[in-house]
Amino acid sequence: MRKYVYMFSEGNAKMKDLLGGKGANLAEMTNLGLPIPRGFTVTTEGCIKYYEDGEVIAQKIQEEIFASLRNLEEITGKKFGSKENPLLVSVRSGARTSMPGMMDTILNLGLNERVLEHFKNHNERFAYDSYRRFIQMFSDVVMEIDKSLFEEEIDKMKADRQVKLDTDLTADDLKELVVKFKKIYKDKIGEDFPEDPYTQLMEAIKAVFRSWNNPRAITYRKLNDIPGDWGTAVNVQEMVFGNLGETSGTGVAFTRNPATGENKLFGEYLMNAQGEDVVAGIRTPQPIETLKKVNKEAYDDFCTYAIKLEKYFKDMQDLEFTIENGKLFILQTRSGKRTATAALKIAVDLVEEKLIDEKEALLRIDANQLDQVLHPNFDAENLKQAKKIATGLPASPGAATGKVVFTAERALELYNAGEKELVLVRLETSPEDIEGMNICKGVLTVRGGMTSHAAVVARGMGTCCVAGCGEITVNEEEKYFSDAEGNKYKEGDYISLDGSTGYVYGEKIKTVDASVTGNFATIMEWADKYRKLKIRTNADTPRDAKQAFAFGAEGIGLCRTEHMFFEADRIFAMREMILSKTLEQREKALAKLLPIQKGDFEGLFRVMKGYPVVIRLLDPPLHEFVPKEDEEIKKLAEDMGMEFDELKVAINDLHEFNPMMGHRGCRLSVTYPEITRMQTRAIIEAALTVQDEGIKVVPEIMIPLIGDVKELKYVKKIIVDEVNEVFKERNKELKYMIGTMIEIPRAALLASEIAKEVDFFSFGTNDLTQMTFGFSRDDAGKFLNAYYSKKIYDQDPFQRIDEDGVGRLVQMASWCGREQNHDLELGICGEHGGNPASIEFCHRSGLDYVSCSPFRVPIARLAAAQAAIKYVNI
Amino acid sequence: MRKYVYMFSEGNAKMKDLLGGKGANLAEMTNLGLPIPRGFTVTTEGCIKYYEDGEVIAQKIQEEIFASLRNLEEITGKKFGSKENPLLVSVRSGARTSMPGMMDTILNLGLNERVLEHFKNHNERFAYDSYRRFIQMFSDVVMEIDKSLFEEEIDKMKADRQVKLDTDLTADDLKELVVKFKKIYKDKIGEDFPEDPYTQLMEAIKAVFRSWNNPRAITYRKLNDIPGDWGTAVNVQEMVFGNLGETSGTGVAFTRNPATGENKLFGEYLMNAQGEDVVAGIRTPQPIETLKKVNKEAYDDFCTYAIKLEKYFKDMQDLEFTIENGKLFILQTRSGKRTATAALKIAVDLVEEKLIDEKEALLRIDANQLDQVLHPNFDAENLKQAKKIATGLPASPGAATGKVVFTAERALELYNAGEKELVLVRLETSPEDIEGMNICKGVLTVRGGMTSHAAVVARGMGTCCVAGCGEITVNEEEKYFSDAEGNKYKEGDYISLDGSTGYVYGEKIKTVDASVTGNFATIMEWADKYRKLKIRTNADTPRDAKQAFAFGAEGIGLCRTEHMFFEADRIFAMREMILSKTLEQREKALAKLLPIQKGDFEGLFRVMKGYPVVIRLLDPPLHEFVPKEDEEIKKLAEDMGMEFDELKVAINDLHEFNPMMGHRGCRLSVTYPEITRMQTRAIIEAALTVQDEGIKVVPEIMIPLIGDVKELKYVKKIIVDEVNEVFKERNKELKYMIGTMIEIPRAALLASEIAKEVDFFSFGTNDLTQMTFGFSRDDAGKFLNAYYSKKIYDQDPFQRIDEDGVGRLVQMASWCGREQNHDLELGICGEHGGNPASIEFCHRSGLDYVSCSPFRVPIARLAAAQAAIKYVNI
Repeated sequence: MRKYVYMFSEGNAKMKDLLGGKGANLAEMTNLGLPIPRGFTVTTEGCIKYYEDGEVIAQKIQEEIFASLRNLEEITGKKFGSKENPLLVSVRSGARTSMPGMMDTILNLGLNERVLEHFKNHNERFAYDSYRRFIQMFSDVVMEIDKSLFEEEIDKMKADRQVKLDTDLTADDLKELVVKFKKIYKDKIGEDFPEDPYTQLMEAIKAVFRSWNNPRAITYRKLNDIPGDWGTAVNVQEMVFGNLGETSGTGVAFTRNPATGENKLFGEYLMNAQGEDVVAGIRTPQPIETLKKVNKEAYDDFCTYAIKLEKYFKDMQDLEFTIENGKLFILQTRSGKRTATAALKIAVDLVEEKLIDEKEALLRIDANQLDQVLHPNFDAENLKQAKKIATGLPASPGAATGKVVFTAERALELYNAGEKELVLVRLETSPEDIEGMNICKGVLTVRGGMTSHAAVVARGMGTCCVAGCGEITVNEEEKYFSDAEGNKYKEGDYISLDGSTGYVYGEKIKTVDASVTGNFATIMEWADKYRKLKIRTNADTPRDAKQAFAFGAEGIGLCRTEHMFFEADRIFAMREMILSKTLEQREKALAKLLPIQKGDFEGLFRVMKGYPVVIRLLDPPLHEFVPKEDEEIKKLAEDMGMEFDELKVAINDLHEFNPMMGHRGCRLSVTYPEITRMQTRAIIEAALTVQDEGIKVVPEIMIPLIGDVKELKYVKKIIVDEVNEVFKERNKELKYMIGTMIEIPRAALLASEIAKEVDFFSFGTNDLTQMTFGFSRDDAGKFLNAYYSKKIYDQDPFQRIDEDGVGRLVQMASWCGREQNHDLELGICGEHGGNPASIEFCHRSGLDYVSCSPFRVPIARLAAAQAAIKYVNI
Repeated sequence: MRKYVYMFSEGNAKMKDLLGGKGANLAEMTNLGLPIPRGFTVTTEGCIKYYEDGEVIAQKIQEEIFASLRNLEEITGKKFGSKENPLLVSVRSGARTSMPGMMDTILNLGLNERVLEHFKNHNERFAYDSYRRFIQMFSDVVMEIDKSLFEEEIDKMKADRQVKLDTDLTADDLKELVVKFKKIYKDKIGEDFPEDPYTQLMEAIKAVFRSWNNPRAITYRKLNDIPGDWGTAVNVQEMVFGNLGETSGTGVAFTRNPATGENKLFGEYLMNAQGEDVVAGIRTPQPIETLKKVNKEAYDDFCTYAIKLEKYFKDMQDLEFTIENGKLFILQTRSGKRTATAALKIAVDLVEEKLIDEKEALLRIDANQLDQVLHPNFDAENLKQAKKIATGLPASPGAATGKVVFTAERALELYNAGEKELVLVRLETSPEDIEGMNICKGVLTVRGGMTSHAAVVARGMGTCCVAGCGEITVNEEEKYFSDAEGNKYKEGDYISLDGSTGYVYGEKIKTVDASVTGNFATIMEWADKYRKLKIRTNADTPRDAKQAFAFGAEGIGLCRTEHMFFEADRIFAMREMILSKTLEQREKALAKLLPIQKGDFEGLFRVMKGYPVVIRLLDPPLHEFVPKEDEEIKKLAEDMGMEFDELKVAINDLHEFNPMMGHRGCRLSVTYPEITRMQTRAIIEAALTVQDEGIKVVPEIMIPLIGDVKELKYVKKIIVDEVNEVFKERNKELKYMIGTMIEIPRAALLASEIAKEVDFFSFGTNDLTQMTFGFSRDDAGKFLNAYYSKKIYDQDPFQRIDEDGVGRLVQMASWCGREQNHDLELGICGEHGGNPASIEFCHRSGLDYVSCSPFRVPIARLAAAQAAIKYVNI
C-alpha cells in the first residue's frame, strides 16, 4: 500500500520527487545528525491524490497524518493541543524544485486559548506575539482574508502607542491585537477562529496543497518549465522560537555570495524575531558576521554546519536557522538561487576545489540565465535608488541608459555629432527606423507586442527594447513624452530601460557591460568539449553574423532573405517587383534587387569564413512589403508612374484571409520562378566572388514551406538550372547544397520521399507548431492564458517544443529522412533552437545542429553540453 | 528490354494501362476478326519516357516505331511515302481512360507533293481534299498555328464560289486551298511544309504526347480524378477514306441511346466525309437507320458488329466507323459516355439481360454523375433553343427557371401571393436572406465564390445557385440587372439558371423534375445490399434532415449548431451573447438562445426517428456573427443599450490575423464554458422531451478543434456535469455519446490518448486538409491554379482526400484510436464524405460511416457499395 506520510528520519536527499526538495533535505540533515526540529512530510503524491479526489484529503491520508503527529509527540515529549508542554508546529510547502516565495507557510500552528495559558505562564509577551502571528497567517493563507486588514491594526496600534517597531509593543498591546484579529476573522468568515488544533492542521495542509495552483505559482512554473502535475509536499515540523526574547533570533544565509559567487558566508539575522521578519524590512537585519559577537557558539556552529552542508551537497547552500534561547536550529537547506555571474564563478570554483567535475559544473548552470551576462546590466547599487516611471513589455533583454530622442533621423544626427548615449522613444517603429535603432542604446515603443517590428529587430540586434508601453504618451511633434503622473521627458533628458523586466526609469542609471571572458569563457570551453550538437545562428546581416561568430556560432542556420528587403534603400525596388503587372516589369525590378542581395550574401560569407551558411528563399506573403497608408501608396504610385487607384487595387488584391496559410514560401517560387532565379543567382555569384578572395564558401540554399515532393522538385529544378547557368557564365563551380524547411505537417509526413531530393532538412518549428496545433501565434494570445490558468497547457509551445505532437513529427521526419538519405543534414531554425529544453530534445532526436539568434548562441552551447552529458548514449 | 511499340495483333483488351483504351480495344477487335484498319500503338510508357527524357523521343523508341511501320507496310502491301500504292496513316491519342475531345488526332499523314500524284491519278478531288485536311490538322496540332486562319480561307473560297458546303468545292478549288494553306504554314513557321513522311510521323507522335498536357486535358483530368502521370498512348493506323465519294462515308453510333439508355442503336453518319465532319455541324448528318437504304450490307454488318462488341465488352459501346468505297471498317470502340439516367437504365437492363451481375452493374455507374438525377434538369429540346446571357460559378447543381426578384422580402411577398417560380438575384446574400432563398427556385449572385454564403446555403438546401457572376450588373434600387450586352432584366422577367454549369439564360426554359424511383431506386437498393459504410448527412435544419432521410441517410453526422444562429430571429441574441462584457450579461443572452436551440434539436431528433444525431458545439470564430457595417453596429448598439464607440471597439477586438487558426472551436468552450453548458442543456433537454414522445433518441455531442487530451477532458467535464444536472432536474436519463472532431494534426498524432476519453472520432477533413497542407482554402485559389498547370498537384485536396498526407493522419488516428478503445465509432464529416474516391478511402480505412450533404447521400450510398465490391476483404 502506498505511504503518504514520512517522518524526517525515514527519508533522504534522494527522495526529492516524493518529499519535495525541502522535505528531502530536512530528512538528510536529520540523518546527518544536525540540530533539526523534528517533524514529518506529507508527500507530493498526497497532493496529487488531493486533486484527483476533487480537492479532498482522503481518510487514509488523514489517518497517516495523525499517526505521524502522535509519533512526533512521542519523540518530542510534547503534546498537540495540551496545556502542559504543548506541541506547536510549522506547516510549509516544498515542491520537487524550490519555488521561493510562491507558496505558503503557517507558523505556530496548534495555538489556541487553552494552549496559550501554558505559554503565558512562561513568557506572556512571546505567547501573544506568537498567537497574533498565527491568527494572521492562518487567516491569510487558509481563509484568504486580506492580510492588510491585520497589518492596518498593527500600524494603528503602533501609532497609538507612538512606537516604531513591532518589538516595542507590549504583551498587553499584543493581547489587544489578538482580540481585534479574532474579530476580523469572525466578521469575514462568520465563525469563530478555530480552537481545535487538528482542524487547524488539516485546513493548513489543504491550504498548502491549494497554493500549488495559485496564480503566481502557475506563472512561476510556466517561466521555469515546471510541470503542473508534480504537486507540492507539505512539511509539518516542531516549532522552535526566535521570538522568545533577546537570546533568540532567526536568520538566513548563503554559503557563498549569491550575487558575485565570492566564497564567503553571506547572510542576515534578527534577534527576537520570527519567520518573515528578516525579509519584511521593518527592522534592519544584521550581517551574519556580527552574530559572532552576540552568540559565538551559535555562530561557530552555524559556520561548521554551513561548510558541512556545502561539502555534502556539493553546491552553494541557502540556509534558514533559528536560535531559541541561545540554541541553534537549522530549519532548511537548499541549493541557493544565484545570479548568472555567481553561477559561473561558483561552478568554476567548485571544480577547482575538486568538489565536482566539469560535467557536473556544466549541469549546475541554468542555461536560460546566461542571458544576464550577455547584455549590459544596471549597476545594482545605482538601480536601488532609481524610480520606475512606467512598465512595458520586456521585448529585448539588457539595460540601456541614454538621452531621449524621438526620431531615428535625429538619433543619427546626434550620434554623428558625438552623442553616443541615446534612447529612441517612438509610438512604434518601422523599417525606415532601422539605421537609427542600430546606433541607440535602447528602444522604447508605446504600441506593439513581443513580435512587433521594434521587438523583432531589437532582439536581432541585441539592443535593449521595451515595447508596448501604453502607460506613457508620446508627443512626437513637440518632442516629449509623459508618464502616467504627467511628468514630461523632453529630448535630451536621460531615461533608462530594462529590457529584461520592461521597466522604464526617468533618470540615468549606471550600466555594467557584458563580460564574456573569465569564468564565462571557461564554462563555454567546457561546454564545447562535451556537446555533440553544432550551434548555428539565425542572422540576416553581417553585423548579426559577426556578433554570433563572436559568441561561438559555427555557421548560419537561417538567413531570412526577406529581412534584407525591409531596409529603406531596398524596399522600393521590392515593392516595384511585387506590384509588377507583367513578367517583364517584374524582371526589371528583380534586376535592381540582384546586386543588393549579392552584396548582402558576400558580407555574410566573408564573416562566416567557411562555416556553412543556410540561405532561405523569400518566405513571407508579399503584402507584408507593400505600404498600407494612402499617403504612402500615393507616393509609391508617383514613383512607379502608376495611377493611385490602380495601385490601391493591386495592393488590396494581395489581401489574404489567413496570411499565415496563404501565398508565401515556395508557393511564390511556383507562381513567380523569376524571384527564385534572381535569389539563386545572387547566392551563387556572391559565393564565387568570395571564393575568389580565397575564402571557403559553402552556401546551403533552403526552400521554405514545402508540402509535397513534386513541389520540391519543381523549385529545385529552377535553382539547379540557374546555378548551372551561373557556373557556365563564370566558367567556375563550387560545392553547394539544396535543402528544405520542414514546417508544414505534410512535409514531415512525407519526409521519406522528400529526403531523396535534398541535402538537408531544417525544422521550422515556429510554423510547424502553428499548423500542428492549429493556432496562429498572433491570435493565440486571446485564449492561451485561459489554457494556462485551467492547467490545460503548462508551457507556451512556441517557447518550448511540444514533444508529444510537434516533436513527434520532427522525430518521424528525421528518422524517415535519414533512412532514405544517410547523409541528410538535420537542423532546427525555429525559435526553439535557443530554448534549453528544446535543445535537449534536438540532441535526443539526433539532429546535427540547432540555430538560434546571436545572443542565444552561448545559451545553446551550454544547453547542448548539458543534453550530451545527461544523454550519453545518443 | 522494355518494348514501347505493339502491333494491334500483339495486344488485347486487358492491356489498357499500356496501350490506352483505344489501342487495347483496336487490338482486341483485330483479334476478334473485325474489319479493322491495321496499325500499331506507341505505349503510355513511351509517353512517360518522352517526358522523363525532357520531351524527346528516345532513339530506341524511334527505331521501334520505324520497324513497326515497315511491318505495317508489309501487312498492307502499301509503302510509306511511295508514289506507287502509298500508305497513309492516322495518328491518334488514346489514354487509359477515354478523354473524349481532350487530345489530338491527325489524319492522312504521309501525304506530300510526290504521294499526291498517286491519289490525283485515281481521284483528284479526293486527293486535294485529303491533302488540305492534312495540312490543316498538322499545322494546328503539331505546329500550333491558329486553325481559324485555315477556316477563314475555306469560308472565303466558299463565298467566292457561292457554295455552301465543303463538298461543293471542286478539285481545283481544293488545289488552290492547298497552295494557300502551305503559304500560311510558311508565313507562320518560316519553313516549307514538311515533305518527309517520317518527319511528319515523328512530329505528329510528339504532338500527341504533348497534347497530354494541354490545358483542357489537365482540366479534364482534374475534374475526373485522372492522375497526371499516366500519359497517353499513340495509335498509328492505316487510313481508310470516307471522303472517296458518295459510296464512302463516316459515322459514329452508340449501341444504346446515351441520353435515355433505350436499347436501340443510336447514331449518325455522313457520306463523302472524313473525321470531324460528322460532329462539325456544317452538313447535317443522317440518322444511322437510314444507312440501311444507302448500303444495306454495310448497315447489317455494322449492326452485327455492334451487338457482338456490346456482348463482348458487356457494356454499351460507342463506335466509330468508315465506309470506303462501300466497304465497312470499324475505327474504334469504347464504352460510351452516357447521361446519369441512361447509366441507371443500362446498368439495370444489362443485369436483366444477364450480361452482368448486380455488383458489376453498380461498378458501371459513375457515382458523381448521379447528381444529375437528384436535381431538376432543363428539358433538352427546350435548352437547345435558349440563349446564354452570362456565366458564373456552378455553385449548387440543378436547373431553375423563374421570375427575377431582387430582395428576399419581395420574394416572400410574391410567394405568399401565389407566385411559386422565382429566382433571387442579388449582389451577394447574407444570413437575413435565408428564408427568401428557401422559397426560390434558384439564386444568382454577382459576388462571392464557391464557398460564399449563397453557395454554401444553397447547396445545403439543394437549391440551384450560380454565384460570382461578375458579367451582370445589378441595380437593386431600380430593380433590374443588365447583361454584358446591356440587355435589362426587370423584376418579373423570366430567367433560367444552370447550377451545374454556371450558365444563365435570359428566358424561361422547361425543367424536368428529379426522379428517385425506378432504375434509380433499384440501383440504390443494390448499393445498400453491398456497402459496409453507413451513410449519414450533414444537416442543420429539420428541412435538410428530411431531404437527407428521403435520400436514405442513416443519421446526422454533423449538425453545425452555429448555422442555426444566423437566422434573423436568432442573430440578435447571439450578438448580444458575443458582445457581453460580463459573465452575467452573457448568461442572460444565452438564456434567450437556450429555448431556440432546444427547439431546433427537437426538430432534428423527430425527423431522424432514432437514428444517431451528431451535434457539434459552437465552432466558428465569434467575429463571424457580428455586424461589420457602421449602420448595423449603430442599430445593435441601440438595441443593446451600449455606446456605438464602445460596441465598435468590442467588435474590433474580435479581429484576428488568421481566423481559421484563431479563437474558435473548443477554445470557446475553454474561455466561455457557459456557452457549452447552454448547448449541452439544449441537446439533453430536447432529447428527453422527444424521448417522452416515444421516439428513440441517440444524441452524440461532438467537441470541435480538439488538439490535446487535457483540453478534451476539460470540455468533457463541462458537458458531463451539465448532462447530469439536467438528468437530476428531470429525474430521467438517456444514453448519449461524447466524441471529438479530429481536424487538428496534433489530435491525429495524439489519437491514442484522446480515444480513451471519447465514444467517437469524426474526421473533419476540411480543416485537417488546411492544416496538414498549411494553406487556407480561402486563399489557396491564388496559387493552386499554378500548381495544377505545373503538374505539382493533380487534384484539389479539398475535393478528393489527399491519401499520402491527410489520409495517413486519418488512418494513424483510426488505428491508434481503435487500439485504445475497441468500441470507438469512426466517421468523417468533411466535404470529402460526399466524394466517391474519398469514400473508397474511408472504406479501406475501416471507418464506420461517412457524412455528407443531403444531396450527396445517394452518391455516397453508391460509392460505398463500389468500394465494398472492389475491396472485399476490408
